[in-house]
Amino acid sequence: MDYESRFNLAWQLLEANRVDALVVTHLPNIQYLCGFTGSAGALVMTSGRDVLFTDGRYTQQARAEVRVARVEIVRTSALAAAGQWLAKHASLRRIGFEAAHLTIAERNALTMTLRRRARLKEAAPVIERMRLIKDSDEIARIRAACHLGVGLFGHLLEVIRPGVSESQVAGELEFSARKAGAEQMAFPTIIASGSRSALPHGRASAVAIPARGFVVCDFGVILAGYCSDMTRTVHVGRPQKEARRVYEAVREAQQAALDAVRPGVTVGEVDRSARKLLRKRSLARFFTHSTGHGVGLEIHEAPRIAVGQTELLRPGMVITIEPGVYLPGRWGVRIEDAVVVTERGCDILTPCQKDLITL
Amino acid sequence: MDYESRFNLAWQLLEANRVDALVVTHLPNIQYLCGFTGSAGALVMTSGRDVLFTDGRYTQQARAEVRVARVEIVRTSALAAAGQWLAKHASLRRIGFEAAHLTIAERNALTMTLRRRARLKEAAPVIERMRLIKDSDEIARIRAACHLGVGLFGHLLEVIRPGVSESQVAGELEFSARKAGAEQMAFPTIIASGSRSALPHGRASAVAIPARGFVVCDFGVILAGYCSDMTRTVHVGRPQKEARRVYEAVREAQQAALDAVRPGVTVGEVDRSARKLLRKRSLARFFTHSTGHGVGLEIHEAPRIAVGQTELLRPGMVITIEPGVYLPGRWGVRIEDAVVVTERGCDILTPCQKDLITL
Repeated sequence: MDYESRFNLAWQLLEANRVDALVVTHLPNIQYLCGFTGSAGALVMTSGRDVLFTDGRYTQQARAEVRVARVEIVRTSALAAAGQWLAKHASLRRIGFEAAHLTIAERNALTMTLRRRARLKEAAPVIERMRLIKDSDEIARIRAACHLGVGLFGHLLEVIRPGVSESQVAGELEFSARKAGAEQMAFPTIIASGSRSALPHGRASAVAIPARGFVVCDFGVILAGYCSDMTRTVHVGRPQKEARRVYEAVREAQQAALDAVRPGVTVGEVDRSARKLLRKRSLARFFTHSTGHGVGLEIHEAPRIAVGQTELLRPGMVITIEPGVYLPGRWGVRIEDAVVVTERGCDILTPCQKDLITL
Repeated sequence: MDYESRFNLAWQLLEANRVDALVVTHLPNIQYLCGFTGSAGALVMTSGRDVLFTDGRYTQQARAEVRVARVEIVRTSALAAAGQWLAKHASLRRIGFEAAHLTIAERNALTMTLRRRARLKEAAPVIERMRLIKDSDEIARIRAACHLGVGLFGHLLEVIRPGVSESQVAGELEFSARKAGAEQMAFPTIIASGSRSALPHGRASAVAIPARGFVVCDFGVILAGYCSDMTRTVHVGRPQKEARRVYEAVREAQQAALDAVRPGVTVGEVDRSARKLLRKRSLARFFTHSTGHGVGLEIHEAPRIAVGQTELLRPGMVITIEPGVYLPGRWGVRIEDAVVVTERGCDILTPCQKDLITL
């Protein structure tokens, strides 16, 4: 990862904000800018001196990970230390902060520390804007994470059978992820079977997989800091006609949205493509969530692929396409891929069978 | 869980804050107040009408989980919907918010929505204060989670051996947690072996366990929404004299801190007890983090058991006691239990061998 270039670009973008320093408190933004992966820290960017504040748990780790900023190990909270450091540097008078991440309490504490020596100022979300477009190193890492995820699907098919609990299935999946080298799961694994498949976010539970019905499997891993995300829905036992029909509709809707992905199209249009297909099948009202989201250092990041969103797709964006249909109290289906936007369309990062699999 | 009583008590505590409504945005606080476990939501508390706003992913789940508040499924963000609802209720003029959780951007958006119809006001952290003291239902759940955690330790000892990667060990541990019914791990599992044991937060990596050295194992599960947390450090191969000496010092420091836990003592005194013992052994400067933290719905919650903290221990608090010694570049040792403060002292929730185990 070329942290040096990121720092330079971020600082360049910040200049339009007319700040003398930026306090970065959102951990994924800190990781993006300097590579630090600890669970507590604050990064102060200035035109010359960049300092990462963290605590004694991360002394060695921070020094090993961070080359682009000076590391200060502190006994107070990282943000408090950042405030004290800023208060001592009289030339830094306009201090930018991340409005989407700094809490009111943190802002109040920072104001107290700075007294009247400097003024706090909401900075534009420049780091998030940079993170929207993945560079080639990032795409390679997301691709590797997705590849690992896809590789787990075969094992999943061996494990899913009537009577086995959803938790057991999730456990087998997560164990195989670890064995394949995943650092951790990117989010709580969703294994939602039978009537629970109608819950779009049905985390694996103690419920046993029924003799007949859908099983929604939505899972992601973290590899080298980057997330994967994919969903496949399989059927245990012989599916009824209506189940087949709905599955095919979701698959077509997902394909329609994938077909819509290309530079210059708004994310709202991509969302509309999926909904339009489901409307034709009279299923649109059962598609109750957005079509997708960005993926990278975080499992959910910009852009949101949702109704009315106007962000334009650009090459290097990595997003999910995941329409679903959920019949309340009965069952549901979702199919999800992660894709990277290319010059001409998109490249699917999670290639994996979408024909209805019956177990 | 008696959500009704929690609601009533919270509202009573809020009255001193002179607010007509409270917007709760911190998800663990929402879960504490009404049982909702989804990943997006905002709860508006008023003297009469309590409303949980969430999105279409959680339609069924929210209705199944939440009895104490009305559920509104919305297409915008939950907080935006809460703001619009508040703007329509003219009698609600003083709107409290959680300063420790609401971001500046969220506050700005809320202000825009409310225009001049109502005034936003920082509310005291009443929910956090309530959560500090666990009720009997909560203690039972934390105890069950810790019991599950302790039950995994035997398997861990079978898996740890030279040449096996830390990730593989973590994977085996997490798989056995799933099989025992855990919903998920409470935090990224730490398996830090050899020189990595000197990293207090050394997440399991691809590194193989060396033929000789310490392995720090720090792990927790979530069961019925509540977290467990424990650490044991074992030694692969025959430990050298210095390793034994340091291990015993950490063990004594941990016992000293445990002995200090009782109602009326400050958390700072508990921290001091551990440090004092390590100072006698000339190891205090290698104990680079705080002695512990609260555990409950969140893996890290109030109080912090750290230098200078003045919070008084009270019966029903659940905290960790986890001193460690880390010799940079060489190796480290940590021993951690979760305990519940009782009328006379504390009750260890993670009973498990502390004699040095050699594998």
